[in-house]
Amino acid sequence: MHGEIITIGDELISGRVRDRNANYLSTRLSSMGIIVTAISTIGDNPEAIIETLDRAIMRSEFVLVCGGLGPTEDDITAKVAAQFLDCPLILDEKVLEYIKHSMKERGLPWVNAYEKLAYVPKGARLIDPQGQACGFYCLSNETPVFFLPGVPEEVRYLADSNVLPLLVSYDSKRAVVRQRVLKIFGLQEAQIGELLEGVANQDTGVLIGYYPNFPENHVSITVRRQTVGEAEKDLLEIEKEVEKRLDPYIVAKDLSSIETSIGQIMKNKGLRLAVAESCTGGLISHRVTSVSGSSEYFERAVVVYSNNSKIDLLNVPAETIEIHGAVSAETAASMAQGIRSISQTDIGLATTGIAGPTGGTKEKPVGTVFIALADKEGVEVERFHFSGSREQVKILTAQTALNWVLRG
Amino acid sequence: MHGEIITIGDELISGRVRDRNANYLSTRLSSMGIIVTAISTIGDNPEAIIETLDRAIMRSEFVLVCGGLGPTEDDITAKVAAQFLDCPLILDEKVLEYIKHSMKERGLPWVNAYEKLAYVPKGARLIDPQGQACGFYCLSNETPVFFLPGVPEEVRYLADSNVLPLLVSYDSKRAVVRQRVLKIFGLQEAQIGELLEGVANQDTGVLIGYYPNFPENHVSITVRRQTVGEAEKDLLEIEKEVEKRLDPYIVAKDLSSIETSIGQIMKNKGLRLAVAESCTGGLISHRVTSVSGSSEYFERAVVVYSNNSKIDLLNVPAETIEIHGAVSAETAASMAQGIRSISQTDIGLATTGIAGPTGGTKEKPVGTVFIALADKEGVEVERFHFSGSREQVKILTAQTALNWVLRG
Repeated sequence: MHGEIITIGDELISGRVRDRNANYLSTRLSSMGIIVTAISTIGDNPEAIIETLDRAIMRSEFVLVCGGLGPTEDDITAKVAAQFLDCPLILDEKVLEYIKHSMKERGLPWVNAYEKLAYVPKGARLIDPQGQACGFYCLSNETPVFFLPGVPEEVRYLADSNVLPLLVSYDSKRAVVRQRVLKIFGLQEAQIGELLEGVANQDTGVLIGYYPNFPENHVSITVRRQTVGEAEKDLLEIEKEVEKRLDPYIVAKDLSSIETSIGQIMKNKGLRLAVAESCTGGLISHRVTSVSGSSEYFERAVVVYSNNSKIDLLNVPAETIEIHGAVSAETAASMAQGIRSISQTDIGLATTGIAGPTGGTKEKPVGTVFIALADKEGVEVERFHFSGSREQVKILTAQTALNWVLRG
Repeated sequence: MHGEIITIGDELISGRVRDRNANYLSTRLSSMGIIVTAISTIGDNPEAIIETLDRAIMRSEFVLVCGGLGPTEDDITAKVAAQFLDCPLILDEKVLEYIKHSMKERGLPWVNAYEKLAYVPKGARLIDPQGQACGFYCLSNETPVFFLPGVPEEVRYLADSNVLPLLVSYDSKRAVVRQRVLKIFGLQEAQIGELLEGVANQDTGVLIGYYPNFPENHVSITVRRQTVGEAEKDLLEIEKEVEKRLDPYIVAKDLSSIETSIGQIMKNKGLRLAVAESCTGGLISHRVTSVSGSSEYFERAVVVYSNNSKIDLLNVPAETIEIHGAVSAETAASMAQGIRSISQTDIGLATTGIAGPTGGTKEKPVGTVFIALADKEGVEVERFHFSGSREQVKILTAQTALNWVLRG
């Protein structure tokens, strides 16, 4: 089964807002073996909406439309949908009741503009109203067309609970698709492409995709088969081959990340971690603590931006900073040992560097970073030179440091 | 002048990667008064690419194409462009030379797959080759069509340095557009819509856009006029009216953010800040240190996940935690005073809470957060209850805490 996604909103074509719905929906659809052939983004413009709907219905087996169902003046999708379906827009009392109830429950004030949310094209079936907006769907030329709001959280809820199950029921000839994503750090896209030459084979239903996803490069392996057994067996075989070729640059798979993997290892081994960050400014801690349950193994972090804080909190000797500088192997090592010692953890991780865009010198240009890891064996330091913006240097440093912890 | 953007890549329609180029390009074009009418995303599929190009050229004054110019097997845009333009694909020796030189300079190994990057349709004009990929453009039916790579950093560079200036030279009847974006925190979209009723007026060329951008809601004011003077004068007037209606919920404007505004205030007043984070896990520090020059006013932060670290680093009395709990007004106040005192800064900011999804109790359910601010006047604490995922609770807490610092 194949279909397309249409996202509507002046904010999207003007670039004011980055669409988050098309990506979510296409990910979910792909994982179910349903193919998305096109994503079209257009403004709050009746002619453009109708033209795009017309074209989509002619060439697709389903259409998902997001956006323009909100309460403000610029939300016109329901009205245009009624025009496209050639039926009047009517007030649905049940939806109105639900919205009033839901606002009350969430402790939000009632605003008359919300009444607009209860108008839907006559004959359209409602998709479980939830929160401030609800969706609806209808058949046009036997093609199901789903209209959803633009708020990502609402789209996710409505898609997962209603739209995807409905779509599957419309899909009679579904092939079995299995996909694995390998997340690579430390190899360029072209290098990965060379290493994987010959693995993909469209004739046998094996696809390899390459996706830069800073700071990682992701490789997807997709296998299409007639049965679950075949698909899973063949995927495993190809995955092994890919792993052999890309080892040791694979840092995570599928939904896992470096930080979730670190969590697993720490819990399994009963280890605890503490971090001393200078140039990463809290990003490492933010990533580690994004994992639920991280309080079990993450003891503390310090973001030591000033020299004083390095001396006070981590017992870095003032002379070390004076002689070698705050950005030096010696300071990094002392920071890692300091944080490990004061927090009494198994591992102490430290970063210090020049994130830029200012602050560089000839000897230590912007992007110079020292990362240090202290454990019961002692302390190791490595010097790096990253290029890019302030944000990119922070991201590359955090990624490299976390990857070091992962590899132990 | 109006045109459209086409982004190409299986990774985009399958949802594996979120496109970052269309958004960047449309933002830049909009700011120059050039209208983007549609963004189409399609896969690495020759028929789909040619069909989409055909349609775009018929209805638009320019077309920007991104993606599929890379070195791997799945990159087919150059080949399809040649087919579309009905001319052969040829090896450009100059480009090849440049790529070899550039790889060497960046210390990257040469991979034969890179040779593919030097093939362009005959007759196309090159867009300044830079890095691993270069772009090209040509006229089709007198409509300029620009082909750019998919790597966001390369697109940005090529667009800013070459494509946008070229587009302006094609644009004879440009209206003057001025836009202001107000970033709102603490009001729902419908509430903002009601407060701003009557301000927009399409007939007079004034547009108000509403864009949820978690955790903020953004409001854009767009004014189209014949002269710069008119546009700027009218924008200022409308902006004042909008400000009057939305005060005090405006947290930033245009490219500024809460953290850049905090930076300005800290520098102007000569103040310094230190942060003690528990449930935000480093996110506040990460946001503050994302601003270049933040080392001038950001002294340090501690991420005190364990009780021990709260006691050790911040001198929070053990009894306070024992009696009131780590998530309590008393602990938050003690953390804020502790971080201010040990870092000897003007302001001490602290957060403690239950980010979830586990760890909630009846009295303190998931989302319960205490934020405290200490300054020379003393310490203030407030209790909040945020809803959402772990990530959303972290984001809402960081945003609320930073907004507090901003408002002083």
